[in-house]
Amino acid sequence: MAEIKEELEPFFNPESVAIIGATTRTGAGAFNVMENMISFGYRGEIYPVNPRYDEVLGRKCYKDVKDVEGKVDLALIAVPRHIVPGVVKNCVEKKVSSVIIVSQGFAEVGGEGKKFQDEIVDTAKKAGMRILGPNTLGTHNFFDNFTSSFIPLKKREYEPIGVICQTGLVFAGFPRFKYGKAVDVGGSCDIDPVDVIKYYVEDPEIKQIFVHMEGLRPGRGRAFLEAVREAKGKGKDLLVMKVGETETGRRAIISHTGSLAVEDKVFEGALRQVKVPRVRDYTELQTISHALLKLPKMRGNRLAMLTHHGASGVMAVDAAEEFGLKFAELSEETKKAVQELSPPWLPIGNPIDIWPGLMGGPEKMHKTALKAVLEDKNVDGVLLSIHIADYSPWPIGTYGHIEALRELAPQYDKPVIVVPIGTEQEGTRRSLEEVKNVVVLDSIRDAVKAFSALTSHEF
Amino acid sequence: MAEIKEELEPFFNPESVAIIGATTRTGAGAFNVMENMISFGYRGEIYPVNPRYDEVLGRKCYKDVKDVEGKVDLALIAVPRHIVPGVVKNCVEKKVSSVIIVSQGFAEVGGEGKKFQDEIVDTAKKAGMRILGPNTLGTHNFFDNFTSSFIPLKKREYEPIGVICQTGLVFAGFPRFKYGKAVDVGGSCDIDPVDVIKYYVEDPEIKQIFVHMEGLRPGRGRAFLEAVREAKGKGKDLLVMKVGETETGRRAIISHTGSLAVEDKVFEGALRQVKVPRVRDYTELQTISHALLKLPKMRGNRLAMLTHHGASGVMAVDAAEEFGLKFAELSEETKKAVQELSPPWLPIGNPIDIWPGLMGGPEKMHKTALKAVLEDKNVDGVLLSIHIADYSPWPIGTYGHIEALRELAPQYDKPVIVVPIGTEQEGTRRSLEEVKNVVVLDSIRDAVKAFSALTSHEF
Repeated sequence: MAEIKEELEPFFNPESVAIIGATTRTGAGAFNVMENMISFGYRGEIYPVNPRYDEVLGRKCYKDVKDVEGKVDLALIAVPRHIVPGVVKNCVEKKVSSVIIVSQGFAEVGGEGKKFQDEIVDTAKKAGMRILGPNTLGTHNFFDNFTSSFIPLKKREYEPIGVICQTGLVFAGFPRFKYGKAVDVGGSCDIDPVDVIKYYVEDPEIKQIFVHMEGLRPGRGRAFLEAVREAKGKGKDLLVMKVGETETGRRAIISHTGSLAVEDKVFEGALRQVKVPRVRDYTELQTISHALLKLPKMRGNRLAMLTHHGASGVMAVDAAEEFGLKFAELSEETKKAVQELSPPWLPIGNPIDIWPGLMGGPEKMHKTALKAVLEDKNVDGVLLSIHIADYSPWPIGTYGHIEALRELAPQYDKPVIVVPIGTEQEGTRRSLEEVKNVVVLDSIRDAVKAFSALTSHEF
Repeated sequence: MAEIKEELEPFFNPESVAIIGATTRTGAGAFNVMENMISFGYRGEIYPVNPRYDEVLGRKCYKDVKDVEGKVDLALIAVPRHIVPGVVKNCVEKKVSSVIIVSQGFAEVGGEGKKFQDEIVDTAKKAGMRILGPNTLGTHNFFDNFTSSFIPLKKREYEPIGVICQTGLVFAGFPRFKYGKAVDVGGSCDIDPVDVIKYYVEDPEIKQIFVHMEGLRPGRGRAFLEAVREAKGKGKDLLVMKVGETETGRRAIISHTGSLAVEDKVFEGALRQVKVPRVRDYTELQTISHALLKLPKMRGNRLAMLTHHGASGVMAVDAAEEFGLKFAELSEETKKAVQELSPPWLPIGNPIDIWPGLMGGPEKMHKTALKAVLEDKNVDGVLLSIHIADYSPWPIGTYGHIEALRELAPQYDKPVIVVPIGTEQEGTRRSLEEVKNVVVLDSIRDAVKAFSALTSHEF
């Protein structure tokens, strides 16, 4: 397995790069890879290759990759498709072992394109060369300041997340999803999502792996499941977004990547088997990823919910059934603690309606109820739904829940998700950002799905 | 029908209010209705009623509602539940025709509570009194500065939206969903969602109605559908969130409101019949509501999509199948216009991959493709998925899509939804906020669901 780490490392962190098809156009709209690479902070050697120029961005430009004097760790090919097969052969002669093909118009469009691709794959295979693409923006690595993207990027903060996409859209990023490394596998004529999962498994900097998939090459299903099992065995979380859920979606995939679209039900079943959460859009991805990074895992699937409204309780009950969670049978101690602060006529169930009890003092109720469910051995995770508006003249902390969470949540090894129903979501999020074992999400369904992701591991 | 407008008007905009159970406690955590009402700008008469005080907030306090000299347009009852039946009788004697019962612990908890409620309903029915509640925060009206809520609220901007909830959580508001009037029907012992739909239908200030439902009283299903049809006939849009989708969810409802939870499939079928979009969480509500307020309706269900990535195209194709939309057969003119700017090997389908063509000049491609689909008679709505990051050093308008949208979208009577995949969502939203016929949403699924809501009307 360590082999794959060495093989793929030049794609993420090369010592030297040849840019075949380098351009002298710069600035907005120029899509100049070399310019982006330099401004992103790449410190290795860059060799521009283009027979039309003697110099690109102040560096010597070569007619052919074979003319480069030094070693080429990675070659980036961005030339019209019919030239690519010849360029790949030149790379083999130059003993380049890692190639990114940015160019489009190969197997995904059929005909001539398919022929070009077959020729490239054949050349590479014989030479032991690894290819990323075609039709890819390549890689992007915040840890080591490398990007191969022709879309310019700035540095930002990052988390220990590795991303694998069958699309370049990840290079625009997603709000609140700050991955550290990303690869667009494009047409996957060689390197595919399975290879990159294995690479990330061996990468000590990566704790969470997100895979956007449209399909896999025939026969790679088993390898995919094995790679997932290995990742989980090493304590890495996985998240998968598999598109092409419908028959028309599958047909759209075939025209997009040319890769075989997996029968969706088969794939869904396989993901369940290896307990990997499937996300359905980018907003959901951000939510689940954040919960997995910040929260402890659940020991079982039993939730307790403290709510300011029966309405949110009902939504949570619906969502729990959908996502395979249960509402815990609360211990007698928990029921007693809540009952003591509630009107005598209130039946104490789960979800626990803490609203009537708040009327007698919200700080005490929040603290008492939260402590009770965190200590309750029948409870594996706690959902708190609060009712809070930014157009209330009261400060966010009025109800006492912020203080209660800060004091209690870090003391127990259970995930706590807070859903502020109302307009005061951002302030609540900021108030609880640094609190251990707590995340703030925007909707009840998101919260329950996040809990479900926290149970997706071996108990 | 005009009758219902008169009957319910005192609940939203009373000339005078008696607050039975008024309190002298004020400030954060006091839940003082009278204090809130005054600070919200209510200009009518307020009569505090509480035998324990002579004065509340500087106004004369009455021992009994019957002692009030002036006319009481609306009485708000917030006293322990066992006192409520007697207070309601006093209201009848005082000839109060509109009563809000804030108190909790009635039919929803069964036993004694059920008996109290039956007694109240009986008294009210005989007197021709209308009751809102029990277990309600009442109403909230930004048009006329009235709130009956014991949770304090500040004024904010508002849109012509009327809300009906079987919960008080609407009083915390939802981000980006600025309704103008809201009612919490609570336990619905008398006034129910159907009554309030009819009220909003007669209200010239309301253009959109949102209903959060847990259930209806037996026999009200037909009246509900009739009210919905009438609302749509008068050009008002409806949105429904019906919780209790699952069997456990239904049981949770029964314990929350005591109202009968409708069999979910029956309800779903009925909504389809009257073409009312169903939303599943508050974030979805905001999205669909915004699209309905700002966009023209679709004449048919045929979408065109311009996309920077095949990946978003596949997601849209999946979502279209789920939400009952089709991808249009593009006209020959449209195909030709896009093909001319694309590489010759690119097949022009729908979704239309405009990315390869962008490489030759993004401004021209965006303008040409957008104009083509807006003019295409086979297309009823346009989805534009752009790839844009805030960590790009380029400004948002670099691709030329903002300019193209500003120039072209207002000229055609078709809805255009823009989904900026990437971190630059807020800037894109701001840039297009004022542009007619355009909204910016965060995810492809949301966009397709919004288009589906725009087809939910008679063609």
